Amino acid sequence: MALRKHAPDTQLRVWARRDEALAETLTLGLADLCSPDAAEVADGSDAVVLCLPVDKLGAIAREIKSHLSPDTLVTDVGSVKRPIVAGLEQIFSEHRNFVGSHPMCGSEEAGLPAARADLYEGSTCVVTPTPDSRRDIVEKAIALWKSVGAEVVEMDAGRHDRAAALVSHVPHIAAAALVNVVGAEAPDVHRLCAGGFRDTTRVASGSPDLWVSILSSNRAEAARGLGEFAEIIGTVKKALEEGRMEDVRAFLALGAGQRSTILADRK
Amino acid sequence: MALRKHAPDTQLRVWARRDEALAETLTLGLADLCSPDAAEVADGSDAVVLCLPVDKLGAIAREIKSHLSPDTLVTDVGSVKRPIVAGLEQIFSEHRNFVGSHPMCGSEEAGLPAARADLYEGSTCVVTPTPDSRRDIVEKAIALWKSVGAEVVEMDAGRHDRAAALVSHVPHIAAAALVNVVGAEAPDVHRLCAGGFRDTTRVASGSPDLWVSILSSNRAEAARGLGEFAEIIGTVKKALEEGRMEDVRAFLALGAGQRSTILADRK
Repeated sequence: MALRKHAPDTQLRVWARRDEALAETLTLGLADLCSPDAAEVADGSDAVVLCLPVDKLGAIAREIKSHLSPDTLVTDVGSVKRPIVAGLEQIFSEHRNFVGSHPMCGSEEAGLPAARADLYEGSTCVVTPTPDSRRDIVEKAIALWKSVGAEVVEMDAGRHDRAAALVSHVPHIAAAALVNVVGAEAPDVHRLCAGGFRDTTRVASGSPDLWVSILSSNRAEAARGLGEFAEIIGTVKKALEEGRMEDVRAFLALGAGQRSTILADRK
Repeated sequence: MALRKHAPDTQLRVWARRDEALAETLTLGLADLCSPDAAEVADGSDAVVLCLPVDKLGAIAREIKSHLSPDTLVTDVGSVKRPIVAGLEQIFSEHRNFVGSHPMCGSEEAGLPAARADLYEGSTCVVTPTPDSRRDIVEKAIALWKSVGAEVVEMDAGRHDRAAALVSHVPHIAAAALVNVVGAEAPDVHRLCAGGFRDTTRVASGSPDLWVSILSSNRAEAARGLGEFAEIIGTVKKALEEGRMEDVRAFLALGAGQRSTILADRK
């Protein structure tokens, strides 16, 4: 949808498993060719964007490999980069034409009804080259994401995974845990949930299947981030118990200040 | 603003400390009388709504007490109810004309620019009678909140404080802690913060002074809620470390399901 808008003359092809999804994509005019045959879709392409759960990427990559030219960019949109980059860089090692990507946008919604042509505009997309990456392939990936309006950050895959744990995976688990605590109470407590609770826990409505897939590929970093988070929670709990409200104030003021610094200029 | 909209024929009076706030309120036509003299504003009123930090309520209550009729409703909007109700019920014990309220709405913003006439519409307002409360006074408080569009829940003050800790105070501290974890990292990590992080941490931008005041009045319940929350975080961390992804999936699925149950029919 974003490429149709920003690159209307580009031939677009879509692979999907379900016939209904393919039919809908064609009906909406979002692709020139739709097929459940990945090799057919990939054949002769200039760029391939793999949008699949982490554990499904390898099989499709191997299926399409022989149908691509040495200069075809292959990238992905996975939320975790170290395991994906390790696996796909090996599969595409002959022409070194893979580089990982992670567009940091989207919502807790899924499927075609949630799609938006302006999704990437003003968002950040991480591209994760390695010492083995071909620079022309990396530049092609950067140009692709920039063409749909994203700002691109180049980052080491491991550093990305640490960052993703802190900005996304830990908040997701925290949101689900906040829901669990309230969910264990009777409905009279539920009636007190207002806008703050709704916003703080919004991401907890995301697909459990998708999130298990994300978390299982990054569980060491997610667990490490959770440990750091839990340590802060423990410190604040102790300060509350001991009535050290100046310490609580310093903690809250630090958070309020850091938040405006962190989100300055972000979408 | 909400009373002006919903009860245009009611005489409205506003007390505030700062002359500029009073002048602005008058200029916007939001009150018929504005004064920094609480006794003058309260004198002869049918209903008084005390909107002050918890630790400032007692002094003003004692100041206005002798200017009220025995049937004047006195209520407040404090986020914590047990200490407020205990204190104010004693001050107004002669006519038993106080009952506590907590409208569960508002945002992290403060001041007149953030005011909205429709703030209460569809929101929940808790009213906390005690065995000593006069039923006509309780009904007057309920009618007041209903008149501006709120749905009213009657609840014991202690039960309210437990609920407020879980739906509001613990999420607030969690949001600030999530910001702290990311804030300790270099700016390249900040660039990855997207919509999920923004929503999950939104409340952390609230006023540290206001939140210290709220938390210090409810620190036992907040600490207890934090303990329950931290226990869940620890359980999930362990499951991630041990690769028990079916347990993580069950945790996430429970959260997603509970969230839609909890928020069904909420504003």
